[in-house]
Amino acid sequence: MNYQAILENIQEAMAPEFGKGRVADYIPALANVSPNKFGMAIQLIDGTQFKIGDANENFSIQSISKLFMLQLVMRNVGDMIWTKVGKEPSGDAFNSMVLLENEKGFPRNPFINAGAIVTTDMLMSNSKNAADQFKNYMRLISNNPSVDFDMDVAKSELGTAHVNFALAHFMKSHGVINNPIDALIDIYCKQCSMSMNCVDLATASLALANKGYSAICNDSVLSERNVKRINAVMLTCGTYDSVGSFAYRVGLPTKSGVGGGIVAIVPNVMAISVWSPELDRFGNSYVGTAALEMFTTITKLSIF
Amino acid sequence: MNYQAILENIQEAMAPEFGKGRVADYIPALANVSPNKFGMAIQLIDGTQFKIGDANENFSIQSISKLFMLQLVMRNVGDMIWTKVGKEPSGDAFNSMVLLENEKGFPRNPFINAGAIVTTDMLMSNSKNAADQFKNYMRLISNNPSVDFDMDVAKSELGTAHVNFALAHFMKSHGVINNPIDALIDIYCKQCSMSMNCVDLATASLALANKGYSAICNDSVLSERNVKRINAVMLTCGTYDSVGSFAYRVGLPTKSGVGGGIVAIVPNVMAISVWSPELDRFGNSYVGTAALEMFTTITKLSIF
Amino acid sequence: MNYQAILENIQEAMAPEFGKGRVADYIPALANVSPNKFGMAIQLIDGTQFKIGDANENFSIQSISKLFMLQLVMRNVGDMIWTKVGKEPSGDAFNSMVLLENEKGFPRNPFINAGAIVTTDMLMSNSKNAADQFKNYMRLISNNPSVDFDMDVAKSELGTAHVNFALAHFMKSHGVINNPIDALIDIYCKQCSMSMNCVDLATASLALANKGYSAICNDSVLSERNVKRINAVMLTCGTYDSVGSFAYRVGLPTKSGVGGGIVAIVPNVMAISVWSPELDRFGNSYVGTAALEMFTTITKLSIF
Amino acid sequence: MNYQAILENIQEAMAPEFGKGRVADYIPALANVSPNKFGMAIQLIDGTQFKIGDANENFSIQSISKLFMLQLVMRNVGDMIWTKVGKEPSGDAFNSMVLLENEKGFPRNPFINAGAIVTTDMLMSNSKNAADQFKNYMRLISNNPSVDFDMDVAKSELGTAHVNFALAHFMKSHGVINNPIDALIDIYCKQCSMSMNCVDLATASLALANKGYSAICNDSVLSERNVKRINAVMLTCGTYDSVGSFAYRVGLPTKSGVGGGIVAIVPNVMAISVWSPELDRFGNSYVGTAALEMFTTITKLSIF
Repeated sequence: MNYQAILENIQEAMAPEFGKGRVADYIPALANVSPNKFGMAIQLIDGTQFKIGDANENFSIQSISKLFMLQLVMRNVGDMIWTKVGKEPSGDAFNSMVLLENEKGFPRNPFINAGAIVTTDMLMSNSKNAADQFKNYMRLISNNPSVDFDMDVAKSELGTAHVNFALAHFMKSHGVINNPIDALIDIYCKQCSMSMNCVDLATASLALANKGYSAICNDSVLSERNVKRINAVMLTCGTYDSVGSFAYRVGLPTKSGVGGGIVAIVPNVMAISVWSPELDRFGNSYVGTAALEMFTTITKLSIF
Repeated sequence: MNYQAILENIQEAMAPEFGKGRVADYIPALANVSPNKFGMAIQLIDGTQFKIGDANENFSIQSISKLFMLQLVMRNVGDMIWTKVGKEPSGDAFNSMVLLENEKGFPRNPFINAGAIVTTDMLMSNSKNAADQFKNYMRLISNNPSVDFDMDVAKSELGTAHVNFALAHFMKSHGVINNPIDALIDIYCKQCSMSMNCVDLATASLALANKGYSAICNDSVLSERNVKRINAVMLTCGTYDSVGSFAYRVGLPTKSGVGGGIVAIVPNVMAISVWSPELDRFGNSYVGTAALEMFTTITKLSIF
Repeated sequence: MNYQAILENIQEAMAPEFGKGRVADYIPALANVSPNKFGMAIQLIDGTQFKIGDANENFSIQSISKLFMLQLVMRNVGDMIWTKVGKEPSGDAFNSMVLLENEKGFPRNPFINAGAIVTTDMLMSNSKNAADQFKNYMRLISNNPSVDFDMDVAKSELGTAHVNFALAHFMKSHGVINNPIDALIDIYCKQCSMSMNCVDLATASLALANKGYSAICNDSVLSERNVKRINAVMLTCGTYDSVGSFAYRVGLPTKSGVGGGIVAIVPNVMAISVWSPELDRFGNSYVGTAALEMFTTITKLSIF
Repeated sequence: MNYQAILENIQEAMAPEFGKGRVADYIPALANVSPNKFGMAIQLIDGTQFKIGDANENFSIQSISKLFMLQLVMRNVGDMIWTKVGKEPSGDAFNSMVLLENEKGFPRNPFINAGAIVTTDMLMSNSKNAADQFKNYMRLISNNPSVDFDMDVAKSELGTAHVNFALAHFMKSHGVINNPIDALIDIYCKQCSMSMNCVDLATASLALANKGYSAICNDSVLSERNVKRINAVMLTCGTYDSVGSFAYRVGLPTKSGVGGGIVAIVPNVMAISVWSPELDRFGNSYVGTAALEMFTTITKLSIF
């Protein structure tokens, strides 16, 4: 397929979709991003890349970091991770405390905030410097030694992280958290602040499209078994409260972030990353979702 | 691939899995089924069939009927269906009233009881004899004119259908239900009572594996768009409270029933049906799930 | 105290309070009542009566019937009643299914709908004709042989009783209900439809103000122990979701109904009934509540 | 009435009630208290005192502190307090986050933990040294200049205060909390740690029994209006999840703590304090509740 032409078609078709969503505004660093940005990158499993628009412009990956932190912890502790966090869709808001209370501090999955905080806590227990380890992993798999935290964003996040503090303290009360909460939330805010672009993210996700092997790294980053499982968790839990609609419209394993970025996987074919800052009411990029829907409609690459 | 050999391997490997689940016992007709039954059938999109064990023995399809009722209503009313029922995983038990109350009588998806009752209600509004229409649709797509309701099962179901009556009345209070509740629950119990075997169910599901076209019917039963969407709903909502685990372990769009049957789709390749009456704690066939997991592990046919 | 003068003061002071609430409109029989009605009656324990305004005009007692049904069942089965219904405030709406599900069909108290339905079910199990028995009890304690059901209201209620049917079916699924649901809800709607006036209700409540003895009946209608307990349940559960505000503002054991009636008890002193059809957002008479607050403020008869 | 004789009868009658509850054990300082302690003190509004058993032995007042903090804040800010906290029973556990989430950080009442934390936060906003101000208020109303925090208890509480930190952070995310959370929870733990005995507590509660006037202080500590209101909140919210049972059995405005202490008010007659460390499953003193029930049964001083 002529992926470059497809990307161009999509970019053109997206013009009327701008202005329908809303840029995240809970911290200034996100609120100040121009709403009209649009970038998209494709990384085929053989290493070929296609990109369009603002695909080389950095943005805050936010919750997409949960996808990579999950990988890192699965590499470290294997299936032990599932003793501390589930893999079922939550049916409730990503930052809800209700289920957490009903289920005694055991988060439903690693892509809601509570579950991601547990994941980060597990890395802390296995690493002298969890933030550095995460950063180095991101540099390795994105093949870009310059990707880094945005410390301004991290600091802003920390200043408004009251719900995350509440989730962490509540899980601590149930014995689920092992590390000091101030340090834990500090790392959590850093990982969310990581600044990357569509090309970085598509590259970093390549292993998920190819049984764990990344042609860019020329190495197996993940086991085939873990790849299958992570993709399953992405499909059932990766897009906040709209996983059903996302599966229905796009039909790919996906992880989104409130910075407007989305990563999607076509198993055995490619990794995709799209970015556009305006969000729908669930917190997914409005234009990015539309672009992915158009992509699977044109290419028939939906997994369904 | 030598599917017959694979089925034989699976059947053999399943021996130690019996005795770990529990046969549904809320009505005698289900409780009296022998727990050691095991059947499996594969229907390739070209029409080739493979089968093993008790694949020709009839059982109660129960909640699998929700999959076919959904198809029938989508054929009748198209996307209008989504004005009355959602397509998100519920995060709560299949018969819960909690979400229904929080969301003012709008069921999360068509595979929880409330959503299936709404689906049946919509068919009633479009059909003089909804039960007959459902039966005829099942006969058509299974290519078996003898499939029928089991009226003993239907009667038993009706006698214990208190929660379903409660759900229907509650939705009626929110204006979601249009038909008389006694007649509605009567039809709902009939559709659940339908008696079919693995070969019937694999055949009936063939269109979902082939863009809507069934080689057995030699006809397009569903639109390609609806097929993609139904498969997405199956993956995110098809197996009660364990859709995440199911995606993780099996990795196929699936619909299960408490009679011990499961239907699974490998898009563009095949439809599968497996039956074994012992259930895990979520209500899915214990052995059937293990058999499907082994199947995708051997064949690498998981969609992830 | 000059109660007649106090009643006159209150009636005068209430003028500006009209128009701030909303008459119940879920059935025509209630919607058609004039919003400007106001009546109030006091029944001292020695038998002396005071009344003002529309105190002799009949209205639909609605949920106030739950107070008298509770008495009747306590007379019949004693403390056994508390094996089927609790005596704690619900913290949720009067017709909520959420708590009912969390607590497996055991209603929090006899003054939410679920609890009142259980109470009526218990009377049915102990009585050949529960509706007649209830009517006769009301005639006895109100000393008025002409009080009766309003069959038009009862019929309208039955036609919109979907949530009550849902509650009853749900409790049936938990084995809490013993009688046929259609007959049960029929009686429940009848008891709610009972037509009485302020004088009737104050008289009927007299025993609650005097250790169980009614000077009008010249008989002990209830045991002293049950009176103390019923008053406690009234204070903690008698006014829907505003028991706290009611205790805070009025400070008396109270039971209200959406017909706009309220019954209040000053232990060892008097029973009071007030009626005005406009309701606050919790379902209590807006003017009636203000009148009772003024009454306890003037007389210092609050129990606190 | 011969209150001394009544107290002696109660003490004797309580012997078989020991061993049925469980001493709080979440911090060592509470777990180490002897389970067989029993003290009771009565403070008549004219200043007369009666006491028995361990009435002069200090214990940790724990949640009873919420009653006095509420008074202090009502004295400072008046009815403004109700813009930040409700006055309805919660229907959920005292430390639940569920309602708090549903109601956007607005706690149901000042006697659940979330509500008490808000109350303390309000005092902090009005006081340079809130902890000292609370201590001085307690010394004033108990007429005992030696009552003080138990800093060992306070420190232990702080070490296990994860749920309280979670509640505070969650309310902070809704803008309900104004002061730094570490300082806030520190004060909250101090107030809970306050060490007092039955005589102190009965004395400190005297104003609630006499329209705000304390014969011991020879001063009006509270307004009559606030007294009526605080007593109403005590009755509907003062004993965790068993306010209904408490009203039913005891029939007095009450506040309890997990240290085993209870304060009860007989309006216009007396204040009572009882202490015995074993708790029922709701967190109220098992023997203390039985003693109060016996007291109102003998004296007929229930408000109902």
